[in-house]
Amino acid sequence: MNPIKIGLLGLGTVGRGTFDVLRRNQEEIRRRAGRGIEVAAVAVRDVVKARAIVGSQVEVMSRPEALVCRPDIDIVVEVMGGLDLARRLVLEAIARGKHVVTANKALLAMHGNEIFAAAHQQGVMVAFEAAVAGGIPIIKALREGLSANRIEWIAGIINGTSNFILSQMRDQGLPFAQVLAQAQALGYAEADPTFDIEGVDAAHKLTLLSSIAFGVPITFAAAHVEGISGLASEDLAYAEQLGYRIKLLGITKRKAQGVELRVHPTLVPKQRLLANVEGAMNAVLVKGDAVGLTLYYGAGAGAEPTASAVIADLVDVVRTHTADPEHRVPHLAFQPDAIENLPWLSMDDTVTAYYFRIRVADQPGVLADIAHILAQGNISINAMSQREPAQGQNQTDIIILTHAAVERDVRMAIERIEQLPTVLSPVIRLRQEDLN
Amino acid sequence: MNPIKIGLLGLGTVGRGTFDVLRRNQEEIRRRAGRGIEVAAVAVRDVVKARAIVGSQVEVMSRPEALVCRPDIDIVVEVMGGLDLARRLVLEAIARGKHVVTANKALLAMHGNEIFAAAHQQGVMVAFEAAVAGGIPIIKALREGLSANRIEWIAGIINGTSNFILSQMRDQGLPFAQVLAQAQALGYAEADPTFDIEGVDAAHKLTLLSSIAFGVPITFAAAHVEGISGLASEDLAYAEQLGYRIKLLGITKRKAQGVELRVHPTLVPKQRLLANVEGAMNAVLVKGDAVGLTLYYGAGAGAEPTASAVIADLVDVVRTHTADPEHRVPHLAFQPDAIENLPWLSMDDTVTAYYFRIRVADQPGVLADIAHILAQGNISINAMSQREPAQGQNQTDIIILTHAAVERDVRMAIERIEQLPTVLSPVIRLRQEDLN
Repeated sequence: MNPIKIGLLGLGTVGRGTFDVLRRNQEEIRRRAGRGIEVAAVAVRDVVKARAIVGSQVEVMSRPEALVCRPDIDIVVEVMGGLDLARRLVLEAIARGKHVVTANKALLAMHGNEIFAAAHQQGVMVAFEAAVAGGIPIIKALREGLSANRIEWIAGIINGTSNFILSQMRDQGLPFAQVLAQAQALGYAEADPTFDIEGVDAAHKLTLLSSIAFGVPITFAAAHVEGISGLASEDLAYAEQLGYRIKLLGITKRKAQGVELRVHPTLVPKQRLLANVEGAMNAVLVKGDAVGLTLYYGAGAGAEPTASAVIADLVDVVRTHTADPEHRVPHLAFQPDAIENLPWLSMDDTVTAYYFRIRVADQPGVLADIAHILAQGNISINAMSQREPAQGQNQTDIIILTHAAVERDVRMAIERIEQLPTVLSPVIRLRQEDLN
Repeated sequence: MNPIKIGLLGLGTVGRGTFDVLRRNQEEIRRRAGRGIEVAAVAVRDVVKARAIVGSQVEVMSRPEALVCRPDIDIVVEVMGGLDLARRLVLEAIARGKHVVTANKALLAMHGNEIFAAAHQQGVMVAFEAAVAGGIPIIKALREGLSANRIEWIAGIINGTSNFILSQMRDQGLPFAQVLAQAQALGYAEADPTFDIEGVDAAHKLTLLSSIAFGVPITFAAAHVEGISGLASEDLAYAEQLGYRIKLLGITKRKAQGVELRVHPTLVPKQRLLANVEGAMNAVLVKGDAVGLTLYYGAGAGAEPTASAVIADLVDVVRTHTADPEHRVPHLAFQPDAIENLPWLSMDDTVTAYYFRIRVADQPGVLADIAHILAQGNISINAMSQREPAQGQNQTDIIILTHAAVERDVRMAIERIEQLPTVLSPVIRLRQEDLN
């Protein structure tokens, strides 16, 4: 059988990785897929540079609009990133009956419902394994591997940059800004790291995971997003002493009242595998009602790990592009007519455990005042410790771990605590999850 | 669309779990699959007991041969276990054009080539996600999720019973026999635990993983199999002191000269996620050339985790049973005409690092003699420690970690060491893998 022809939109890190792995492993891939996969064309800004990479067998185009119109191309691989142009090109490819493979989480988080609706209409596939957790086949695991389960929740380390920074802050005891600068020098963080460190990238991915786990529309606006730029390394150290690691987690849970969707730094018990995912690696923990806990770990970014996911999608498309669309795995795991508009829970209604660090004057009665306010707010204390003041200081830190409490109650209790004259700084408040 | 009708061969732990989850999650499964899955009949030995479980809507049959012949059944689910009868029934179902879902690793490890050839001939699917690592979708990850990769090696904790026993031996410092008895009392080990504790069950599963990773025929006879019944808890303690955990691993590697296939207790560096998989849980670590390391973790046994895998296979079959067989995922990941007869490496040719514990007389020169023999055998020492003899004893243990060495050289060196008059007992020899 002739190879299937694909076009690459973009030849950056992921595009280049995809091209390289397709070439290097072409024989292995053909042995599996039963058919070769051939890059017919690439669309790039720098045509000269691209020619040097892809050689003379591949057409290099400067106009991506022209690539998506080529009749010889069956699958368009969108690895250019960005929103507006990528959206237009993907929709154009779909309109022309082409299948799409994309690594673009921002695009799908913002425009996924529109894109998948168009694809459904046209009977084409839009595959996006590479958009979440790089090389880890988590989309496949959730959509197919766990299809027997009612998924209860997902908690994931799905941004490698922030996990790398947190690992370094803990290991070296250095402040955030210094570690970020290191990460940028090493290429683990971009020049503008905002999306990574402020939790936006993780929220994009979590939004997609939530949708395929629970059969709900993609709703990025529902996500509560906190990043790691405000974290102090002393809280990482205190957490460690208490038996916890701080990780930037994306968490989505199905509750009786609706669905939680939140990204924030989280204390995780040290003995959990998820707490031991270090450096730039990713891991996703899934709780299903039948299977219990499963965890998926691997590289969440990088040229070839992401290419691994892109190509797995290509092989899937090669296998199923002649099938009746109704027999394919639905884009969002659930049949389009079975997507439900479950309510999204506000952060105020979230129930979780908390870590507080409270800077107080070293005076009698402080602890009693704080404990009193927490009790009035229905916030039950799990553990509390007060540090000895440093030599010559008359202030100290009180560290509190709570049992599960309602976020609204916690917010109001903190407001009251901060009004105590003996409380000297804003309360540091982090969330804690047991994940079992 | 009418539900697809299935028949269950067996209503033991897994059969019961499958029945329960299919019923409990029927709506969730239908929302994903687009079609219901209905148990039309079960074949069991104890008809009265089964009737009480399945109710009046499901036909209870005492003759499994009759179930596989029913024209209304599209998929036969073999969850009865055993070899000869299961083989006959599966082949009969295939001959009648029925798809098969099975959780039977022993059956596939012994008769898989015959069964898959028959299925290919008939254009039906034989799905076996539940046969390896219970609820972890590892077959799907390897066959589909990592299809871009040249797989380099797999190392897995794929027998929960032995992992549970090892965790308990380490935590409690108790000998193997005592912990086995506990495990039996708790239901974590069977009355006849041989297959679990002697590595046979792990080797069955590893044989299947090796085949789908490398595109080689299923060859259980090629596996080198060592279990945990000979392990002393003091070696678990020594390993711990050196920074390692001992795990029963199934390891298969593609080398230039051929494929390694081996199950044995293995020292793993403590900081690896795989070293932190505790109790009856399973985990499989896969190294692919593009994706790097990925790990898959979850419950490796139990009614509902295994049912999760059985039902995921059912959903896959529901989706693809009308497809052209050539477009389905091949049974062994590679197209049938692309399966290669790579040579299997003998254990003597295996290259790995080693742990030795050598009981010696507390005399000068002992260490020098041992070091001399190792040097002559091209075995390079990574770390060595000699314990102080216990009070009033004139013998002690020397612990040695080696760098990578050839097993044949190690075997011959141990023979020579055991002939030293100062060496008082057979040398304890375990293998060590870095897994990075």
